[in-house]
Amino acid sequence: MIILKIGGNILNMPAALAEALDYFAAIEGEAVLVHGGGRKADAVIAEMGRVPKMIDGRRITDALTLEIVTMVYAGLINTQLVADLQARGRNAIGLSGADGNAILARKRPVNTIDYGFAGDVLGADAGMLGKLLKAGLTPVLCPITHDGQGQLLNTNADTIANETAIAFARAGHDLSLRYCFEFPGVMRDIHDADSWIPILTPATYANFKADGTIAGGMIPKLDNAFTAVAAGVGEVRIGNLAALRAGLGTVVKNS
Amino acid sequence: MIILKIGGNILNMPAALAEALDYFAAIEGEAVLVHGGGRKADAVIAEMGRVPKMIDGRRITDALTLEIVTMVYAGLINTQLVADLQARGRNAIGLSGADGNAILARKRPVNTIDYGFAGDVLGADAGMLGKLLKAGLTPVLCPITHDGQGQLLNTNADTIANETAIAFARAGHDLSLRYCFEFPGVMRDIHDADSWIPILTPATYANFKADGTIAGGMIPKLDNAFTAVAAGVGEVRIGNLAALRAGLGTVVKNS
Repeated sequence: MIILKIGGNILNMPAALAEALDYFAAIEGEAVLVHGGGRKADAVIAEMGRVPKMIDGRRITDALTLEIVTMVYAGLINTQLVADLQARGRNAIGLSGADGNAILARKRPVNTIDYGFAGDVLGADAGMLGKLLKAGLTPVLCPITHDGQGQLLNTNADTIANETAIAFARAGHDLSLRYCFEFPGVMRDIHDADSWIPILTPATYANFKADGTIAGGMIPKLDNAFTAVAAGVGEVRIGNLAALRAGLGTVVKNS
Repeated sequence: MIILKIGGNILNMPAALAEALDYFAAIEGEAVLVHGGGRKADAVIAEMGRVPKMIDGRRITDALTLEIVTMVYAGLINTQLVADLQARGRNAIGLSGADGNAILARKRPVNTIDYGFAGDVLGADAGMLGKLLKAGLTPVLCPITHDGQGQLLNTNADTIANETAIAFARAGHDLSLRYCFEFPGVMRDIHDADSWIPILTPATYANFKADGTIAGGMIPKLDNAFTAVAAGVGEVRIGNLAALRAGLGTVVKNS
């Protein structure tokens, strides 16, 4: 099984998105697509005369922002991706975490920062997702979850991909989790295309963090990836589409 | 099996909506929920500085309007309804027509009026929906469909309910199609709550249309209902929640 996560940048580039969907639709066997979509949400928030609220790269989700991200992630982007996959002959089915109770979360507790309606994932239901896959359906997951009490929550898409992979791994599936983003891998220097790191282990990751080579938004992504391999996900691979197609990109390993 | 369609008015009244969801969630056995949502779409269209375009009660769906109705129907309303049903212990799964290829449509041909991205339904996939039901999932259908080539289409929610009922009837299911709206039934006089019509047959319907008792938006709804019973749907019942709960409302019959 392959779980592919595509990020907000690709969603905004029609040609790159079409290629990524061609790649995904052609995967033989079981596959799950996970998408973000933050930039389109920002555009809609702006059209409604609001300014996106972010702290440390995380969105502050007030009630109106939750409405907008639900519309954009679960409505516009998810539904169009499903239609695009149908056009490629892949029988996709779009899901938020509320659909089939696929991903249960809880509202993030307020410590120093109140993130509003942000969801911390409690777990994905690999059993239900497995039934869809067995019925010939390919799940397409958007980063909206719910708390089981009727409250929708805005959730990080990398976390959705990761938790889904972990749930399948725990259910005994052999799987590869692939993060498709704009670089050929995790970069030592984003201005040098050849500087991608082939393998990351906890030890090398710690070194790269200590010397500042790996910083910013890559840290939560890689923390997620190490959590996944520690939980039994066979492989986590990070790269652009060309790298993933070629079996390249950064491989995150336990040791 | 019960297919319940709830309209845009109920969606805008939190107390009435909660009652309708209580009723739906408590249905024993297989059930499908279909919803519209036109008024919320109008509100979002207005927030984005546009005026909804309508001709004869039908929306003209230009590209931006399609984006908005996709966000509102498939995103906001559908996802929240699913979360609300989960909170009531019903394992719901939200679907547009693209999801699992549930409902295929084609763009309405342009004759005198160009409706834009409006979808005429070609058919619902009772086989796929039946698999979801067998897996313990309760489909919640929104009125966005697709053409199989990647184009999303805006579709009348009554038609979605009707075509889904017809597909299940053709697949041998015994089912009741229920339209929940704001009146106790099809009314002779909307100012007289006792004037609801208990039974409509093609002959009595023709008379009521001829003398103007039934007019306007009820006509496409009832045309749909007669199409459904003619195609083998066991029962079509139209009324408000109190009427449907009591087994009352207008029953549409073949003869």
